[in-house]
Amino acid sequence: MSKYKVLFLPHNKEIVVMDGENLIRAAMEAGVHINASCGGEGICGKCRVIIEEGIVEGGITENLSEEDLEKGYRQACLTRVKSDIVVRIPTKSTIDASALNMQSTPRRAVGIRKIDLAKLKKNGIFACPVEKIYLKLPRPNTQDNMPDLTRIVKYLQLHHDKHHLEADISVIRKIPDVMRKDDFKVTVTLMLPVRTKGMIRIVNIQPGDTTDLNYAIAMDIGTTTIYGQIVDLKTGRVLSGYAGFNEQISYGEDIITRIVYAEKSGGLERLHEVVIKSINEVINRIIKDAGIDPDEISVITLAGNTTMTQLLLKINPRHIRLSPYVPTSMLYPPIKAADFNIALGDHVSALIYPNISSYVGGDIVAGVIASGMYRSEKLSLYIDIGTNAEIAIGNKDWLACAACSAGPAFEGGGIKFGMRATKGAIEDFSIDPVTLNPMNITIGNVRPKGICGSGLIIIVAAMFEMGIIDNIGKFNRSLETNRIREVDGICEYVLAWASVAGSGRDIVLTESDIDNLIRAKGAIYSGYITLLKEVGLDIHDIDRIFIAGGFGSYIDLEKAMTIGLLPETDPDKIIFIGNGSLRGAKIGLLTNRIRKDVVKVIEKTTNFELSETPSYMDSYMAALFLPHTDMSQFPKLKTRLKARKKI
Amino acid sequence: MSKYKVLFLPHNKEIVVMDGENLIRAAMEAGVHINASCGGEGICGKCRVIIEEGIVEGGITENLSEEDLEKGYRQACLTRVKSDIVVRIPTKSTIDASALNMQSTPRRAVGIRKIDLAKLKKNGIFACPVEKIYLKLPRPNTQDNMPDLTRIVKYLQLHHDKHHLEADISVIRKIPDVMRKDDFKVTVTLMLPVRTKGMIRIVNIQPGDTTDLNYAIAMDIGTTTIYGQIVDLKTGRVLSGYAGFNEQISYGEDIITRIVYAEKSGGLERLHEVVIKSINEVINRIIKDAGIDPDEISVITLAGNTTMTQLLLKINPRHIRLSPYVPTSMLYPPIKAADFNIALGDHVSALIYPNISSYVGGDIVAGVIASGMYRSEKLSLYIDIGTNAEIAIGNKDWLACAACSAGPAFEGGGIKFGMRATKGAIEDFSIDPVTLNPMNITIGNVRPKGICGSGLIIIVAAMFEMGIIDNIGKFNRSLETNRIREVDGICEYVLAWASVAGSGRDIVLTESDIDNLIRAKGAIYSGYITLLKEVGLDIHDIDRIFIAGGFGSYIDLEKAMTIGLLPETDPDKIIFIGNGSLRGAKIGLLTNRIRKDVVKVIEKTTNFELSETPSYMDSYMAALFLPHTDMSQFPKLKTRLKARKKI
Repeated sequence: MSKYKVLFLPHNKEIVVMDGENLIRAAMEAGVHINASCGGEGICGKCRVIIEEGIVEGGITENLSEEDLEKGYRQACLTRVKSDIVVRIPTKSTIDASALNMQSTPRRAVGIRKIDLAKLKKNGIFACPVEKIYLKLPRPNTQDNMPDLTRIVKYLQLHHDKHHLEADISVIRKIPDVMRKDDFKVTVTLMLPVRTKGMIRIVNIQPGDTTDLNYAIAMDIGTTTIYGQIVDLKTGRVLSGYAGFNEQISYGEDIITRIVYAEKSGGLERLHEVVIKSINEVINRIIKDAGIDPDEISVITLAGNTTMTQLLLKINPRHIRLSPYVPTSMLYPPIKAADFNIALGDHVSALIYPNISSYVGGDIVAGVIASGMYRSEKLSLYIDIGTNAEIAIGNKDWLACAACSAGPAFEGGGIKFGMRATKGAIEDFSIDPVTLNPMNITIGNVRPKGICGSGLIIIVAAMFEMGIIDNIGKFNRSLETNRIREVDGICEYVLAWASVAGSGRDIVLTESDIDNLIRAKGAIYSGYITLLKEVGLDIHDIDRIFIAGGFGSYIDLEKAMTIGLLPETDPDKIIFIGNGSLRGAKIGLLTNRIRKDVVKVIEKTTNFELSETPSYMDSYMAALFLPHTDMSQFPKLKTRLKARKKI
Repeated sequence: MSKYKVLFLPHNKEIVVMDGENLIRAAMEAGVHINASCGGEGICGKCRVIIEEGIVEGGITENLSEEDLEKGYRQACLTRVKSDIVVRIPTKSTIDASALNMQSTPRRAVGIRKIDLAKLKKNGIFACPVEKIYLKLPRPNTQDNMPDLTRIVKYLQLHHDKHHLEADISVIRKIPDVMRKDDFKVTVTLMLPVRTKGMIRIVNIQPGDTTDLNYAIAMDIGTTTIYGQIVDLKTGRVLSGYAGFNEQISYGEDIITRIVYAEKSGGLERLHEVVIKSINEVINRIIKDAGIDPDEISVITLAGNTTMTQLLLKINPRHIRLSPYVPTSMLYPPIKAADFNIALGDHVSALIYPNISSYVGGDIVAGVIASGMYRSEKLSLYIDIGTNAEIAIGNKDWLACAACSAGPAFEGGGIKFGMRATKGAIEDFSIDPVTLNPMNITIGNVRPKGICGSGLIIIVAAMFEMGIIDNIGKFNRSLETNRIREVDGICEYVLAWASVAGSGRDIVLTESDIDNLIRAKGAIYSGYITLLKEVGLDIHDIDRIFIAGGFGSYIDLEKAMTIGLLPETDPDKIIFIGNGSLRGAKIGLLTNRIRKDVVKVIEKTTNFELSETPSYMDSYMAALFLPHTDMSQFPKLKTRLKARKKI
């Protein structure tokens, strides 16, 4: 695909983009602010730019007159780059040089690192836990009338070197009819064991050859959000994905509240039913989106924190919240999904990621597995940013982990217009230092409906750097703009007026939202700093930092450092893997060896209880600032802020 | 216990009995006829005898006058032997010597050979498939807060050398509460694997020490009858047993009719429900009789023919009846009993005996296992007498088997007053050659209610030897007695008048009953003779004959030979093991090694389809006589009959 240069004037900033790139996204990438409050849908008409040279497509709307068009005006948000171009950002009031300098530096955003399927295949570990095999069995006759299942087993032994076979009773019930439907040509689905000499279970039988149709579901059961993906086990590709709320949220936002609810009479059953309902909604959606036959789903992997896992399986989580914080089980056997009411066929096994401790659950185990840090010589720090934030440190020889409660801010919880990273969420943002007008970019380039986690980080960081909010997250009330206002005693900034918002209401960011974000990032920052201290390390000893979290499709590292969520470190060390739990669930579907690795990982992991670590609370209190009370930990930011103050 | 001599006069027959033996049973044993139609309850008052010497207890009733008592009269059926005694049988008409000679010779009855528990224990193979272990676990604390299940698993590994452990999800759900009920003292129930390195499943957890309470159920699922026993896994002893009808019988007496019914819409489900209902009734009864807590039942083993097994598990049996007669499976995995609606706890696994072919099912596999013939150098013939009769021949190196349909006569089916071998069933019988009055002995010494399988053999054999019925089973209509009569065109003999019968109706044996018996024994006889021929053997090559069948607590070998059910052979070769299927189910509970043996047995067994063997039908037709068309096969009987004719 062709690449083109885009030069922005009067900023004189140039970046290289792919053929067809959206011009407003190119500007954001270059750190050039263009007023744009409608998220990129073309409604607000604010993002007028002049194409001085080169070829573009689109960008012509009713907001532009004949005269405008002749002068080269386009709406940036609807304009696609088709050659090297020169673009001028018109300024009503002449922006002075200092204002231009105050604009952001080109960002350091990292997208989610993809799973390298080609590498898995090359290394011979692309081997799913379920396998479909097509069998053309000999027809029985009076000389050869062995039982149907014996015929299948003997054939698999002889022609496919499969031994220690056992069939589920549900499969045995189907065998007589299915075998005779297509003249003894059948496809069997085998569930492979973890142990080399373990039993191979025949979990399904279908007439004819269905080996091309073999799908699985990977799921992350979060406290706030449930993510699901359909994975094609033949190719390893994700066919569809969807995130839905965990409706347990009506019974409490955090896990402690839910555990307390589960202790009430009927509470456990209720929470179990609710999460299963939420899961089934996600499953129905992703099956529909992928356009597959649900009967062709062979397996589901699920990862969640310890409480979510216990509620999912209807296991009383009471002792998770009581000292000495004992969960019920580390490992779970494969369970029929239908046995705990997941709306999948009787043949579908659920593989559940094991927990390490009450607060370090299957989600982080999945993430550690997905990161591969347990196989590396390098020292890694793994941070899973979510309602319950989990941290792991270690390498192939040792692992330490801990967890802390961050609250749901990064998943949109406790944020007035918070939402998950789906269509309409503001995921990128800049602010004009003079007019204080915003540049909102939304997922899907549609009118803004709310703010997702990654957007929230960028908005708060941008406002803090511009001095619009101070280091305790309060708005500078002396600024002259109608976008900053007080409603019911709470100060807020209007990101999008109702006229251009997808919700039909003004979309705002409140001081209370900022406060929630500061507490969330403070808990996480102090979590990994405390754990590092406990194992006698410093952040500078770490070779790689894996960031996991379901809050967006990328993370702006500079901004995450600005708010003090991430340590100020070499951005090249940081690898964003998106939803680590979901990724681990998916990896578990692609290579069966993972199931053995998981057991080894949990065996070599030492768990630290932060609540039992006195220094944690001190560290947390010190982190409740932007970026931190101790600015010496953020030297680059300190320099930048100093420079800004001079202007 | 003391033994005493009992001399019967005027017959001058002496036998040795145990202290307290019932006098009428002693007479039967000695081959001395005493009129007794009430089964031994003391009602009919016919069994008057004179104690001429020695001490007895009981036998004094209102039927005897002061004068009678002074003369030494007692009612034999209520009299217990307490020293050496001399008993005279009074004869109203003087019985001549020839009549005395015509009475039976002392019988050759064999009781059921018991399972030798002491030997099992001595050989170290008394090792149940489920094991209870009491654990005093260390309490968790903040330094040691591993998950509950991990605590159990680690303890079992360290202190009990148990590895490859896996817990059922139902157990995991119980763990948190149960562990804390008695201060981390728990009893776990382990289901041991078949394979040496297989998974050990933790199937239950209970607070405190319950290792003394560990029970199991052994069951035989017959076409007509369902037998169940409660077995104490600590001692190996049977605590209770009960036989109930398989209510599927309302849907057809034989398996073919049931298979046809199962093919109707909803038929399979209906038959499944009905057999489960029958099973649950037996289970409830034996639990109640044993006086145990149902929660302490750890496992159930079930053995049945192939059709019964498939209906039990709700597997369509259609192809069992259609050529080439293919059953669905040989082996079945352990299944949770509750999963197919057996009314036992969620933790109870059902172990199901495997089938060999469509007509050689788990019942005969269980019987072959129970007989031990598969471990012996000796050549054995195994005959299971039931609605579906199965036959096996072989030794430790090879096994051949076949099956035939005998009909339910031996289990009381198709017999007007047929009943199972339970209280009130006539199990022993003799007939006065002059008066043609009967001597009925019933199970439990109560008024007769009907005839069980072993009683039926004895009654028909006695009548045949006395010439009351001929070799095609028809009554000699010229005999002068009101006990032989014709009702609705069918000739019958009155075993007990309504006045002494438990049923309140005359209890009779009809020619139609005899006909059913002849067809049943003919099918079985021709079955094993044909199978012997197929493997190139003769009945005289056989070292041991195992007889199995749920028709009574003993079998009268002489009588079984007289009717042509058993071959005329050395009675010492014959071993009666009772219900072989039930016995196999029980053996499977006592020694887990059996589960490995079973797999080996079915692998080395060759199945013969008698329906595909042309000589079978000829052999069957020839066997539809008492004892057989070819009297040369029964030389001893031939001699006896000749001797009788002379009298």
